[in-house]
Amino acid sequence: MMKRVVTFGEIMMRLSPPGYKRFVQTDSFDLVFGGGEANIAVSLAGFGVPAEFVTKLPDNELGEAAVRSLRARNVAVDNISRGGDRIGVYFLEKGASQRPSKVVYDRANSAVAMSRAEDYDWEQIFKDAGWFHFTGITPALGDNVAEICRTACEEAKKAGLTISCDLNFRKKLWTSEKAGKVMGELMKYVDVCIANEEDADKVFGIRADNTEVSEGRLDQSGYIQVARELTERFGFTTVAITLRESINASINRWGAMIYSDQDAYFSKKYQINIVDRVGGGDSFGAGLIYGLQAQKTREEALEFAVAASCLKHTIEGDFNEVTVSEVETLAAGDGSGRVQR
Amino acid sequence: MMKRVVTFGEIMMRLSPPGYKRFVQTDSFDLVFGGGEANIAVSLAGFGVPAEFVTKLPDNELGEAAVRSLRARNVAVDNISRGGDRIGVYFLEKGASQRPSKVVYDRANSAVAMSRAEDYDWEQIFKDAGWFHFTGITPALGDNVAEICRTACEEAKKAGLTISCDLNFRKKLWTSEKAGKVMGELMKYVDVCIANEEDADKVFGIRADNTEVSEGRLDQSGYIQVARELTERFGFTTVAITLRESINASINRWGAMIYSDQDAYFSKKYQINIVDRVGGGDSFGAGLIYGLQAQKTREEALEFAVAASCLKHTIEGDFNEVTVSEVETLAAGDGSGRVQR
Amino acid sequence: MMKRVVTFGEIMMRLSPPGYKRFVQTDSFDLVFGGGEANIAVSLAGFGVPAEFVTKLPDNELGEAAVRSLRARNVAVDNISRGGDRIGVYFLEKGASQRPSKVVYDRANSAVAMSRAEDYDWEQIFKDAGWFHFTGITPALGDNVAEICRTACEEAKKAGLTISCDLNFRKKLWTSEKAGKVMGELMKYVDVCIANEEDADKVFGIRADNTEVSEGRLDQSGYIQVARELTERFGFTTVAITLRESINASINRWGAMIYSDQDAYFSKKYQINIVDRVGGGDSFGAGLIYGLQAQKTREEALEFAVAASCLKHTIEGDFNEVTVSEVETLAAGDGSGRVQR
Amino acid sequence: MMKRVVTFGEIMMRLSPPGYKRFVQTDSFDLVFGGGEANIAVSLAGFGVPAEFVTKLPDNELGEAAVRSLRARNVAVDNISRGGDRIGVYFLEKGASQRPSKVVYDRANSAVAMSRAEDYDWEQIFKDAGWFHFTGITPALGDNVAEICRTACEEAKKAGLTISCDLNFRKKLWTSEKAGKVMGELMKYVDVCIANEEDADKVFGIRADNTEVSEGRLDQSGYIQVARELTERFGFTTVAITLRESINASINRWGAMIYSDQDAYFSKKYQINIVDRVGGGDSFGAGLIYGLQAQKTREEALEFAVAASCLKHTIEGDFNEVTVSEVETLAAGDGSGRVQR
Amino acid sequence: MMKRVVTFGEIMMRLSPPGYKRFVQTDSFDLVFGGGEANIAVSLAGFGVPAEFVTKLPDNELGEAAVRSLRARNVAVDNISRGGDRIGVYFLEKGASQRPSKVVYDRANSAVAMSRAEDYDWEQIFKDAGWFHFTGITPALGDNVAEICRTACEEAKKAGLTISCDLNFRKKLWTSEKAGKVMGELMKYVDVCIANEEDADKVFGIRADNTEVSEGRLDQSGYIQVARELTERFGFTTVAITLRESINASINRWGAMIYSDQDAYFSKKYQINIVDRVGGGDSFGAGLIYGLQAQKTREEALEFAVAASCLKHTIEGDFNEVTVSEVETLAAGDGSGRVQR
Amino acid sequence: MMKRVVTFGEIMMRLSPPGYKRFVQTDSFDLVFGGGEANIAVSLAGFGVPAEFVTKLPDNELGEAAVRSLRARNVAVDNISRGGDRIGVYFLEKGASQRPSKVVYDRANSAVAMSRAEDYDWEQIFKDAGWFHFTGITPALGDNVAEICRTACEEAKKAGLTISCDLNFRKKLWTSEKAGKVMGELMKYVDVCIANEEDADKVFGIRADNTEVSEGRLDQSGYIQVARELTERFGFTTVAITLRESINASINRWGAMIYSDQDAYFSKKYQINIVDRVGGGDSFGAGLIYGLQAQKTREEALEFAVAASCLKHTIEGDFNEVTVSEVETLAAGDGSGRVQR
Repeated sequence: MMKRVVTFGEIMMRLSPPGYKRFVQTDSFDLVFGGGEANIAVSLAGFGVPAEFVTKLPDNELGEAAVRSLRARNVAVDNISRGGDRIGVYFLEKGASQRPSKVVYDRANSAVAMSRAEDYDWEQIFKDAGWFHFTGITPALGDNVAEICRTACEEAKKAGLTISCDLNFRKKLWTSEKAGKVMGELMKYVDVCIANEEDADKVFGIRADNTEVSEGRLDQSGYIQVARELTERFGFTTVAITLRESINASINRWGAMIYSDQDAYFSKKYQINIVDRVGGGDSFGAGLIYGLQAQKTREEALEFAVAASCLKHTIEGDFNEVTVSEVETLAAGDGSGRVQR
Repeated sequence: MMKRVVTFGEIMMRLSPPGYKRFVQTDSFDLVFGGGEANIAVSLAGFGVPAEFVTKLPDNELGEAAVRSLRARNVAVDNISRGGDRIGVYFLEKGASQRPSKVVYDRANSAVAMSRAEDYDWEQIFKDAGWFHFTGITPALGDNVAEICRTACEEAKKAGLTISCDLNFRKKLWTSEKAGKVMGELMKYVDVCIANEEDADKVFGIRADNTEVSEGRLDQSGYIQVARELTERFGFTTVAITLRESINASINRWGAMIYSDQDAYFSKKYQINIVDRVGGGDSFGAGLIYGLQAQKTREEALEFAVAASCLKHTIEGDFNEVTVSEVETLAAGDGSGRVQR
Repeated sequence: MMKRVVTFGEIMMRLSPPGYKRFVQTDSFDLVFGGGEANIAVSLAGFGVPAEFVTKLPDNELGEAAVRSLRARNVAVDNISRGGDRIGVYFLEKGASQRPSKVVYDRANSAVAMSRAEDYDWEQIFKDAGWFHFTGITPALGDNVAEICRTACEEAKKAGLTISCDLNFRKKLWTSEKAGKVMGELMKYVDVCIANEEDADKVFGIRADNTEVSEGRLDQSGYIQVARELTERFGFTTVAITLRESINASINRWGAMIYSDQDAYFSKKYQINIVDRVGGGDSFGAGLIYGLQAQKTREEALEFAVAASCLKHTIEGDFNEVTVSEVETLAAGDGSGRVQR
Repeated sequence: MMKRVVTFGEIMMRLSPPGYKRFVQTDSFDLVFGGGEANIAVSLAGFGVPAEFVTKLPDNELGEAAVRSLRARNVAVDNISRGGDRIGVYFLEKGASQRPSKVVYDRANSAVAMSRAEDYDWEQIFKDAGWFHFTGITPALGDNVAEICRTACEEAKKAGLTISCDLNFRKKLWTSEKAGKVMGELMKYVDVCIANEEDADKVFGIRADNTEVSEGRLDQSGYIQVARELTERFGFTTVAITLRESINASINRWGAMIYSDQDAYFSKKYQINIVDRVGGGDSFGAGLIYGLQAQKTREEALEFAVAASCLKHTIEGDFNEVTVSEVETLAAGDGSGRVQR
Repeated sequence: MMKRVVTFGEIMMRLSPPGYKRFVQTDSFDLVFGGGEANIAVSLAGFGVPAEFVTKLPDNELGEAAVRSLRARNVAVDNISRGGDRIGVYFLEKGASQRPSKVVYDRANSAVAMSRAEDYDWEQIFKDAGWFHFTGITPALGDNVAEICRTACEEAKKAGLTISCDLNFRKKLWTSEKAGKVMGELMKYVDVCIANEEDADKVFGIRADNTEVSEGRLDQSGYIQVARELTERFGFTTVAITLRESINASINRWGAMIYSDQDAYFSKKYQINIVDRVGGGDSFGAGLIYGLQAQKTREEALEFAVAASCLKHTIEGDFNEVTVSEVETLAAGDGSGRVQR
Repeated sequence: MMKRVVTFGEIMMRLSPPGYKRFVQTDSFDLVFGGGEANIAVSLAGFGVPAEFVTKLPDNELGEAAVRSLRARNVAVDNISRGGDRIGVYFLEKGASQRPSKVVYDRANSAVAMSRAEDYDWEQIFKDAGWFHFTGITPALGDNVAEICRTACEEAKKAGLTISCDLNFRKKLWTSEKAGKVMGELMKYVDVCIANEEDADKVFGIRADNTEVSEGRLDQSGYIQVARELTERFGFTTVAITLRESINASINRWGAMIYSDQDAYFSKKYQINIVDRVGGGDSFGAGLIYGLQAQKTREEALEFAVAASCLKHTIEGDFNEVTVSEVETLAAGDGSGRVQR
């Protein structure tokens, strides 16, 4: 039995026009719930890892619906604080081909963004837990939440947990300057750092020479250099970087690298016909945490994480609704998609 | 050609679970736009009256969608200010039988609620207009908006417009005390006062003896007494009160009274099988403004207003999508609902 | 085994906004097929009577879809002529409470309306058949179709079939004057005449004294008088009149009378919570034909017909998708609607 | 904190055509999960009572979906056995007006119906629990399940639990003879007996004189007589009987009586515009268990139960998604359905 | 006029979550009907070939709906036996990209699987027919059905029909051992054998050297070898093998080979963006039967069959709703997909 | 501020089965409005250009809905004539992969097709306008409309407007012979001629040597030759030709060329995963008009037009709901489709 993984952050209502309709065309929204750390908890619970999500949600039916979406997927919700004014919302318009997906955030003043230290009893939360995960979105919600995050990290360290963080830079929440400062302080608690191909640059100004991600060209040596700098600056045991080549909004290539002990490994790459790419990074993080917890080798853990997140791109919603066996089948090489009957 | 009617207030995204699903059951929301004053403008435009809606909306796709919903229905949107953070949202769960409809507001910090005096150029807005309408919801959005409302009333008076107000008390926006104070000051500009069977009590503490609306029993003399007191206190030329008997959430009886020149008239009553009762009061207000503008007699105007709002209860969404001819057919007595082919 | 019933007329695409949406609100239409005589054929096939529908439909996918809707329900389609420009369409907006349903016809120039005598081989069609049915809509499609109708009647008579006709006056297709003239000539072939409470007046100017159907008040003696006059003028063996009291668009009372051998019988009445009332009259006609063919007594046949059409009001679409056993259960008195499990 | 309530039975996939479509008309099914005892557990969890549902479900995605539907609603699922071939299915066609709802069962050979004694560890299940509930459907699934039911009752008694049973006769599962025999033996463990107006007759041949439920006429003295006989024969402490008057499939009147200590109390009656009446009886049972556990008086408990089940009729699906506060508001007399904002 | 083709097997309800939703995410299922031999009959009827489907279906509304789905498409249903307990069901989750489609069968104890010899009058069924087709699924339903299949083959041979069989191995229905034994005996009646790239191996252990279909690599000489061995062992006049290269669940390459008179022909290949690939093999079989019946050359028949099944992949549901003209346009080389207006 | 662009033509109801359903499979249609010239007006309004659409629509709810769809998108509708019998309809079945999209027109006898000279006051319409656009569809509606078109051109010239025309040949509306004759006369008024790769040939018999568009192979020099001939024959200042390579119905390559001053420029090419390609040509035309009006260079205008129409292929409906900024982002080279948040 693996130890419990605790994640902390915001879960939002995600409202999307059906299919490929644009915001100005729709007269309905599909509703799911999602958010970086919630997505991770759901993934892990789906992999059979005891997982708990900590946040604050309003004490109304919309908050209750969010809780249900977690409970249904076997995520522990016992330490979700209830109160505050509203649940955060994000509107998502799905892109296609040359038209990018669009997110309109309406998350200001959410219950968790307004929450205070006393809403969370970290000592109680981390009892018997083994891992703590958060992303760069959480401290970006406000100085109060950044401070709560810091407290959580401290308590997690005290309780002997491994701490992972996905840098997850969101330019609509804060500037690179602010992010660099706040995240820089939190990094000292972090063991495993996860990032996409742009985060290290956006948050810490660490970038490889010559990598032009906007053109989708990726350069292995550059990513090794980024991972090495991150490790040197913050003392991570492990750095994992996802590598997305965006052919267009419908077709992506997807892989990742892992760096530890001064050595890098690059995963196989998948070309993906995208159903829903939101939560792709989170599903990678969850796969990695699972892999590392499950005592897989570094290489196996990375391939598991990449396969898990490859599958996420084929699944509607933020949550990665796949099983360990499905991920392992793909990681083992069967991506043929033949009907299983 | 009637003169332009200007209304000022908030238009929100209304998000409802389809059919009779509860909030905790739904995985989609139907989207329409609505709000007291916007609903009135749409009704009037549908009746062929030049109508304009003034508000502030965010400069994003959601704000644009709101504008489109108005423009489609021929409401002038030229003086809608664009900017601010968000469009207000309200979540509506449709009730049935003994289960009431439920509204969860998420409208705090909307663009209009945060708007300032300089967002509106009333002199320009009221040029060549003939009527100004607002409801008690608008000043309840905040002291800043109440003050803007006052300015608008002043400018409207200066420009010689008739002013109507629907008291529309919302207990989630302010207290009776606050409402009484703020609305009391605005009433001095108002010519035509519209209210439902509870508003006068909730806002001004004016109530008829013995009227127990919670039981749906209504008492004509009591309402005359309320109208008389309102008139005496604020000098209205006309007071109109809607009279709803809620058999249950699926079946209502609906009528109204009008009071002017110290004399009251009670409309015929309709028993309604409800499709969507939100916006019922607004559709009454619009019908009344139309009737009064169209030089109908007081009695005809009231019957027109009641018939219009009776029809609103059969129409999905906040907006009353009916024509003058449809309303007049019903007001003239044909409520048989026979197929028109 | 009952003998085959042949019906002749137009089947249209019926396009309706979902639920109670108005035409100006919808962004989709539900599609079913329907038309007076097609509805009758479908009902009869559902009752186990061999039934055939004769018409002309365009030789494209839309015509094919119409044919499928009939074939699925076991209606013989062997003599449907294929060709012409288009299938007729009617747009239906479902009413509720005081708001009536609305029909917008777009049926001009349909394949059947443009069809010519040589499109139909009546001798072949009526071989081994026992009954021919048409409604007043068919001759109203055009002089050519009225003439085809006359030919069909002549051939049917020659072949010894019983002929029934539902007067079904449609004011958007022709005037009362034209209808009276054309239908008057066709009536001489008809054995069984079916009408609603207004048709006899609208088509032949035969009306009972004092019956004010617009108010929903019905008067038994008046209807007997109408049936007697119809019988005397045209020599029908049987006249059946449906009696609808339209409380509103959501609630109707429904019954019928039958007149033959100078004697009338009035059915029991049903108060109906309406799901879809279009095709109500047709389902009555089909029930009556079934009852008369099945050697039921006149009273039983009428009660069967009324029960069948009562059930139609609870069923979406033009077609009355019910079985003999369901109708007989209701006719026998069980309208309690208890769950059948 | 109330003690845990355990229920045991079958949870099925319920597949319904959308709206009022008939089985032969639909090309999709709405999916919810439900079943007598599961419905009760969900209701109780919604009332804040610790509730657990015990069953056996196949170890596939469909079984997982059923588990999720329970877990989402805070029902403990720890003792659900996984395995077997299939999840039971029932198809539900919603009736309207004179057309009854129809159920087609496809539940034979379900995992729970095929389950064996060793699938359940009752001693473990009942540890710290306070109440055990089952219905007459469970033993009707097969002799094996009846025997498991008996074992459960024995263990429940041993562990000091209160036992309640809803007779819930299903004629498609067994005959009255078989039911009488099997249920007769189980009744000796039961403290609280729940039934509808027909069950006592169908299962035990206990019927009041002159009660003709098919006509919807109900007779208080007859029900007292039935309750008395049940009590005398089986030694129940409490008998509760729901009283449904089926005006038609769209409108029902609903009340109940409770009998204990040789004394009966009849609840107030509600006239209901029905949204979905399936699970109405179960929601009553849950309300009663809650009321009795919550130390309400017998009268209060009954009124709570009747109000809870009245609300169920307005809610889609088998599960009664209401809160204690909503039920108490209705029980306290507010059934006006006024919008709550 | 071509002679009637009779197919025998199971038709099931196919229930699929809408779009790309997973089983655990859906709250509705799209419903179509399908099954190997029914799909063939529908295809052929769509090509204008008289086609009949023989099976057994329950005598309830769900069985009736299945019959309607066939009748609508002009498939003769006169010899469908009615009775038994249930219609088989299969749940289909549509895959995308690296995530495969998933089928959950719930078909045990279906009416046809439980049917007995006396349910079918083969002599009557085959009167005036020209071709009999079944697949390996039918005998896999049970020994009783295998025996009925054998009888049917015998009677078909007696009546001079051509017999075709699609091996269609289903590992969830039986083992390779059992399949080999049962199918081996049936093969002696078969003239035309159809298989996919794995069936010959799975059923008869006949495999080409070096063909690794899991990697999607195909080897022409290997398939010729398989066809030759099949022909030699069972004396087929014709063997046709479909060749699917599964790039992933969204993109497949598709072609086929035909072998007769010791000579093979390989069709052109299509790269397909998949809409719904279920029934792809069946649509190939139907195309081949059509082509052979229509006196096309072997090469033309194969190209017709491959083009038909290529189109099937673009069509929702099991049934291949295409016309001869559409297939011939594609077979003639126009796969450009330009809008036809 | 750009000058007003006026377009004249037909706007139709477009009815499409949802998703990839075929006409014979659907039981609903999605509704949008569209038509060549209306699409252009909507695009331009979306780009911030004052745009007006002139047509005739029936004075019923369906006509009103069409007007709303334009008004919502800020297209001036003041000179839309109301009256006539019907709005034109076109049924669209969306293709996929090798299956082409299909259009069934039902537009005969539409209000605009039956309209007469006096329905339009061109002098008034063109007052203060700067550009007039029509397509080859408009004169194809009938000789009366061709004559109206000629009048409009004359008046436009008189008023000093630039005139553009998209040849847009529709073989179901007229023959090449008729088109050549009518269009030939109108061309003398035209400044900017737009065509796809087949139009010049179909309308004027001007074709490049060796260009086999059915195979998707395109040949630059051939298109230059076509543009040169068009220019020489009709004296256009500018000719623009769209170049579509149809890989299949799901994937197209898309580019264009522009020819003026005896010099050609070919745009970059996009490979597009298609959502909805109807209106692709119109969106190009609008982009070109915008670009030329906005004083872009010829090359920039073409790249803008191609990028705009590339985006159109990713958007549901006829209308190209994109902004200038979105188009410019793509034209500037970012087609990566990365999520914008």
